[in-house]
Amino acid sequence: MSAPVRIGLLGCGTVGQAFVQAITEGGPTIERASGHRLEAGPILVRDPTRPRPGVDPALLTTDPEDVLADPEVGMVVELMGGVDPTSGFVRRALESGRPVVTANKQLLSREGDALLELAATAGTELRFEAAAGGAIPVIKVLRESLLAAEIDRLTGIVNGTTNFVLTRMRRAGLDYEAALALAQELGYAEADPTEDVGGADAAAKIAILSSIAFHTRVRFGDVPFEGIDGLHAEDVEIADGLGFAVKLLGVAELVDGAVSARVFPALVPHGHRLASVEGADNAVLLESPGAGEIMLVGPGAGGSETASAVLADVLSILGTQRGSFLHNALADAGRPIAPPGALRSAFYMRLSVRDRPGVLARVASALADGELSIETVLQQGQGDAARLVMILHEGREERMRAAVERISGLEDVREPPVVLHVIGNGDGR
Amino acid sequence: MSAPVRIGLLGCGTVGQAFVQAITEGGPTIERASGHRLEAGPILVRDPTRPRPGVDPALLTTDPEDVLADPEVGMVVELMGGVDPTSGFVRRALESGRPVVTANKQLLSREGDALLELAATAGTELRFEAAAGGAIPVIKVLRESLLAAEIDRLTGIVNGTTNFVLTRMRRAGLDYEAALALAQELGYAEADPTEDVGGADAAAKIAILSSIAFHTRVRFGDVPFEGIDGLHAEDVEIADGLGFAVKLLGVAELVDGAVSARVFPALVPHGHRLASVEGADNAVLLESPGAGEIMLVGPGAGGSETASAVLADVLSILGTQRGSFLHNALADAGRPIAPPGALRSAFYMRLSVRDRPGVLARVASALADGELSIETVLQQGQGDAARLVMILHEGREERMRAAVERISGLEDVREPPVVLHVIGNGDGR
Repeated sequence: MSAPVRIGLLGCGTVGQAFVQAITEGGPTIERASGHRLEAGPILVRDPTRPRPGVDPALLTTDPEDVLADPEVGMVVELMGGVDPTSGFVRRALESGRPVVTANKQLLSREGDALLELAATAGTELRFEAAAGGAIPVIKVLRESLLAAEIDRLTGIVNGTTNFVLTRMRRAGLDYEAALALAQELGYAEADPTEDVGGADAAAKIAILSSIAFHTRVRFGDVPFEGIDGLHAEDVEIADGLGFAVKLLGVAELVDGAVSARVFPALVPHGHRLASVEGADNAVLLESPGAGEIMLVGPGAGGSETASAVLADVLSILGTQRGSFLHNALADAGRPIAPPGALRSAFYMRLSVRDRPGVLARVASALADGELSIETVLQQGQGDAARLVMILHEGREERMRAAVERISGLEDVREPPVVLHVIGNGDGR
Repeated sequence: MSAPVRIGLLGCGTVGQAFVQAITEGGPTIERASGHRLEAGPILVRDPTRPRPGVDPALLTTDPEDVLADPEVGMVVELMGGVDPTSGFVRRALESGRPVVTANKQLLSREGDALLELAATAGTELRFEAAAGGAIPVIKVLRESLLAAEIDRLTGIVNGTTNFVLTRMRRAGLDYEAALALAQELGYAEADPTEDVGGADAAAKIAILSSIAFHTRVRFGDVPFEGIDGLHAEDVEIADGLGFAVKLLGVAELVDGAVSARVFPALVPHGHRLASVEGADNAVLLESPGAGEIMLVGPGAGGSETASAVLADVLSILGTQRGSFLHNALADAGRPIAPPGALRSAFYMRLSVRDRPGVLARVASALADGELSIETVLQQGQGDAARLVMILHEGREERMRAAVERISGLEDVREPPVVLHVIGNGDGR
C-alpha cells in the first residue's frame, strides 16, 4: 500500500461535493481496487459558510495559496470552472509538477494545447475526462483504446440539456419554449441556458474531442456552431413523420486530410443508433476503418456521474505508475457466487393448450401458488390448438421452475411450456 | 523515441494477419501517437505454407522456442486459441517477464486468475481486451474508468453470431435453421456453431467481464448458460408483437452481496437500449449508482476489429510507462482545419409558399442549378399557406447556401426557408 495521496480541490459545488463524498465513502473500494488511499483537501471555495453535506468545513479555505503552495498536496482537482482566474491556478499547479484533473471545457477548448505542453514540460499530467461527454469515458477510449485507429469521423450528442429538450419536443409535442421551461424546472437546464441551447457548450466539447481524435489542435473558435434555440416544433413534427429524430449533433471528420468540426441540429433516421439516445444522455459514435463503429452512451451530467469521471482520471494518473492496474485485476473482493435458485426474474411463457373451460384458471392457480403474478395474457386459436402466452412479473426463479413443472403436468397442456426471461420491463430492471 | 519493441506472435490466422498489417501499415500513426515503434515476429504457425497476405514469410516458424526463447522479443501476442498447449506457452512468456496480450476467452475464463497471478509475480502484465466484447474497449473501461464504481449490474450482448441470427429471425421472419444457415453463408457463424449458439462462448466472456466488474473470480463453470438453439420462430414473432426483441444476454449482478452471472435468451422491450443493438454487433451495459448507466456498442468480431483491440492492449502496456499517453495528447498530425464551404451534407428544407403554378418548378430549378438533388418532396395545404418540405441528397454546402438565397428571393416564397442538416440517410454517412 502506497502513502495516502492528498488531493487539493479548486471549487466545491455539486460535482466537488460528490467527489469528496466518493473518495470518503468509497475509500475501501478505491483502496482495494487501486492500491491507493485518497484524502481530500484543502479546498478552495468562495463562500465557506454555504452548506456542503459530507464535506468537512475545516478543509475549506478562501485563499488559493492554501491549495497551491501546500507541499502535502500531491494532485489538484479543478472544479471551479471559468477561464480567469482558473487558468492561472491550473498553470501554477502544473508548473510545480503536480498532476491536474479538470472538468473545465471552457478552459480546455481555449487553452488546452498550452496547458498540455506546460504539463509535459513540467513532467506531469493534465487529464480532463469530465470536460467532454459527461460520465462517458470517451477521452480514455480515444487516447488509449483507439490510439492507433485512424478515426475518420466522430459524431456526438454532447449536450444533455438540448437532448432533453428535443426529446420532449418530439415525444410530448411541446414547443421549444415549453420544453425548455420543463428542463429548467427539472434541473436539466440552467436559469440562463444560452451556452447549452445556443450550441457553444457542445462546440467547446467537440473542440476537445476532435483534437484528441485527429491529433490536431482544434480550438473553440475553429468550431462553427448553431443551436436549437431557433427550432420550430413544426419541423420536429414533420421530421418525425418522415422517419427522423432531430438531434443537436457535434460532427468532426476528416475531409480531404483536413479536420472539419461543427455543431448543428440535424435530422437522424429513427433506425440510426444515435436516434435512440434520449433524454439527458450523451453519446459519441467513433468511426474508423480498423475498429469499425464504436458507440459510447451514458449520463451527460449529474454531480455523482461527473465526479465518477473525475475520480477515474485521478486513479488513471496514479495507475500509469506501472502495476496499479494489475493490482485492480487481481483485487479479490471475496464475494461468493450466488446460488441460482434464489434469483428473481420476469418471464415469458407460451403454452399449447386444449381450449376447454378451466384451463386458464388451472394455469393461473399454479402460478399464484408460486406467488407469480401475471402482467399480460394473450390467448389465440381455439379447440385443441389454442395458444396461451403470458408475461409474468418478477418472481423467484425456483418458484417459477416449480410452477412450470406443475403446469406441464396439467391435463389440457399439450407440450412442455416455452419459458424465456424478460428484462427491462419496468420491474426494477 | 524509444527503441523498437519486437512482438512475438503465437498464431497467425485472420486476426494475426490483421494485427501484423495494422502495425506495418499503421506504423507512422502508431509512432507519432504513442512514441513507440512496433516490429512483428517471430510468428509461430502450424502451416507456414498457407498464404498470409501482408505477412513476411521469413518471420514464420513452427518451433515455439523461436518465439519464447528469443531475447529480442519484448512482448508476446497470443492468437492461436485453445487451452493446450497455449496455456504452457503463455506461462513461459509471463515467467520470463514478458507482457502477454491475448484474445483467448477459453483460456482466460478457465485459468485467468492463475495467469494474472503469475504475471504479477513475474512483475509483468497480461491484457485481454479482445477476449470479451470484440472491438469494444469494455475491459479498459471496467478496469480503469470504472475502477472505483460499485457496479451492481452488467448486461451484455457478447456473441455476434447469435445476435445476427436473432436479428434475422425477427426482421426477416426466418426460422432458426434458416437464419443460422444465412449467418454461416455470410461468415458470421462457424461451420460448427455449437459454442456460439449454445451459449458457451457468451458464458466464457461473461465470466471474464464479471470477474473484473465485481473484483471476484468468476470461472466459466460458475456461469450457467442456455443458448438460442432451442428457440422457435413463433416465440420471436409473438415477442415482437408484444413489444419485445429476443436477445441472447449475459447478465452479471450483485444479489445480496453475491455474484450471479448467467447467459440466457431474454425478451427485451423495443424501447430498451439493448434492443436496438442489431446484427453482429456487441454491447455491454454497465450500471452503477455513482456513474449511472453506461453502454458501449461496437463490432463483435472481425479480423481488423479484433486486431485493433489487441493493438490497443499492446500500446496500453507500453503506455503504462508514464509519459506515453501524454505524448499522444500532444501529438500533432499537423492537419489543417477544413474551410466550411467545401463540406458536403444532406439537407431538410421547409418552405412556406403560395400554392401557384410553377412554384415547385422554380424551387427545383434553383436546386438543380446547384447540383442538389431531391430525395423526398412533401406538399401540404393550399392557397397562400402551402407548405413544401424536401429532403435533399448530399451536396456541397456552399451550393446549398446559394440555392437557399435564390429560393428566399422567389416571389411566391413567403418566409425564409428552414434548413436543417440530415445525417445517416444512406448517402455515405
